[in-house]
Amino acid sequence: MALRDELRFRGSLADHPTDGTPGFDGGKKDAEKELPELGPEMADLQEKLFAHGYTEGKQRLLLVLQGMDTSGKGGILSHAVGLLDPGGMHLKSFKKPTREELSHDFLWRIEREVPAAGEIGIFDRSHYEDVLVVKVHQLTDAPEIERRYDAINAFEKNLVDSGTVIVKCMLHISKETQKERLLARLDDPTKQWKFKPEDVDERGYWDDYQKAYEIALERCNTDHAPWFVIPSDRKWYRNWAIGRLLRDHLAAMNLDWPAPDYDIAEQRARLEDEK
Amino acid sequence: MALRDELRFRGSLADHPTDGTPGFDGGKKDAEKELPELGPEMADLQEKLFAHGYTEGKQRLLLVLQGMDTSGKGGILSHAVGLLDPGGMHLKSFKKPTREELSHDFLWRIEREVPAAGEIGIFDRSHYEDVLVVKVHQLTDAPEIERRYDAINAFEKNLVDSGTVIVKCMLHISKETQKERLLARLDDPTKQWKFKPEDVDERGYWDDYQKAYEIALERCNTDHAPWFVIPSDRKWYRNWAIGRLLRDHLAAMNLDWPAPDYDIAEQRARLEDEK
Repeated sequence: MALRDELRFRGSLADHPTDGTPGFDGGKKDAEKELPELGPEMADLQEKLFAHGYTEGKQRLLLVLQGMDTSGKGGILSHAVGLLDPGGMHLKSFKKPTREELSHDFLWRIEREVPAAGEIGIFDRSHYEDVLVVKVHQLTDAPEIERRYDAINAFEKNLVDSGTVIVKCMLHISKETQKERLLARLDDPTKQWKFKPEDVDERGYWDDYQKAYEIALERCNTDHAPWFVIPSDRKWYRNWAIGRLLRDHLAAMNLDWPAPDYDIAEQRARLEDEK
Repeated sequence: MALRDELRFRGSLADHPTDGTPGFDGGKKDAEKELPELGPEMADLQEKLFAHGYTEGKQRLLLVLQGMDTSGKGGILSHAVGLLDPGGMHLKSFKKPTREELSHDFLWRIEREVPAAGEIGIFDRSHYEDVLVVKVHQLTDAPEIERRYDAINAFEKNLVDSGTVIVKCMLHISKETQKERLLARLDDPTKQWKFKPEDVDERGYWDDYQKAYEIALERCNTDHAPWFVIPSDRKWYRNWAIGRLLRDHLAAMNLDWPAPDYDIAEQRARLEDEK
């Protein structure tokens, strides 16, 4: 079975163990060796996508990363996403919305960050926060949350119809793993800056978050933009799986080098005949 | 002599050979081995910078890349800049200005792309285009060009005074190297998409561009934001030199891990005492 089929959201988070390694036979060392080896192929595929954007193409790719604190969105950026060429990438980390952003519809700040033709866009958090943290902390009313699932599906449908491949990944960890990682941050002087006391407060809402994720994944698990659930208790598997999903989706775009729209011989002569 | 001193602009482009390898003793293989070996140290330095931005710090770094077509701005992004963590990077490629951008002062679109605290900003082309291509093609009048050198110096001074280290690099190639690289693009089906017939037109203005570069480098070679001239006929030297300059400037910021602003024992107890 293809990795994408193994990782596709299957209707309930309970069906997705946080410590599995679907589609991967080896262990940590194997994955850490295999991931960077994907680099050259990914660079080649990415450059073909970029070349199409540079000429007449409309194709884009958008990777959406969601997950609880410590699930490893940052690790994905430095490892899997780090294999890509930054020149063809548009990365946006969505923070707590500003006053101006809140005065618009929730998709306003998202729309201006979607990748351009030829680009790979990376959303570190995304429009899904507006049905996750917003729902858990009741920052808006229930009918508005309800409206947003449909709005998200319509928004993503339009992106797909206009040439975007969307890869939505939830980095799935257990509550125990989060505790271990928060404690590890406290123990390590090179990681203490990442820790905020509010992270512990948020753990009090763990079950509410899991429920909100489950609803969001179920309501927005469309054929045009399905959700993938990445078991993320093992960092090495998480990084490998995202790298492979990126590679597989790029490869499936089936792009070749665009044909030149000028006469090669004529241009060569212009260069060679310079005085 | 430190690499930064060797590469600093010395008043005339004629004093900077395009095929030199200042500060580097070995050859291609050595440089291609040494550059990726800088990766872990750069990642560590970058994370310290990012950590300060995440807490209370104001420090930023801005790398400005300028150079003639084919001088290798794209190669720098995939090689030297590719060693950085995309999560702490803000890369902006400045294209031909839009109508809206042209309706503002030339610095308007630049100011909105400067790096935030903790970030490494990368400008692929920059505000210098407004005294380069604009001057060569006389897209504005002479007094306006004249005004811009001072405006750039004041703009950069303000960036530096508010916590930004600016590293301005001109990728310096010979006219012959550009010709070879354009011909190589025509010969290679995987590179033909990069070629535009206008690139050959622009070569007709080579000397005007060199003059415009020389004036811009001289007028904006300030103590707070000096220019570096990177000999770029050899791609391997160019990539190595930019990597080393980035590493050296990051190291000179002399940042350590920020101290936590919370009580570690208290937070550990909160996590361990969870029911």
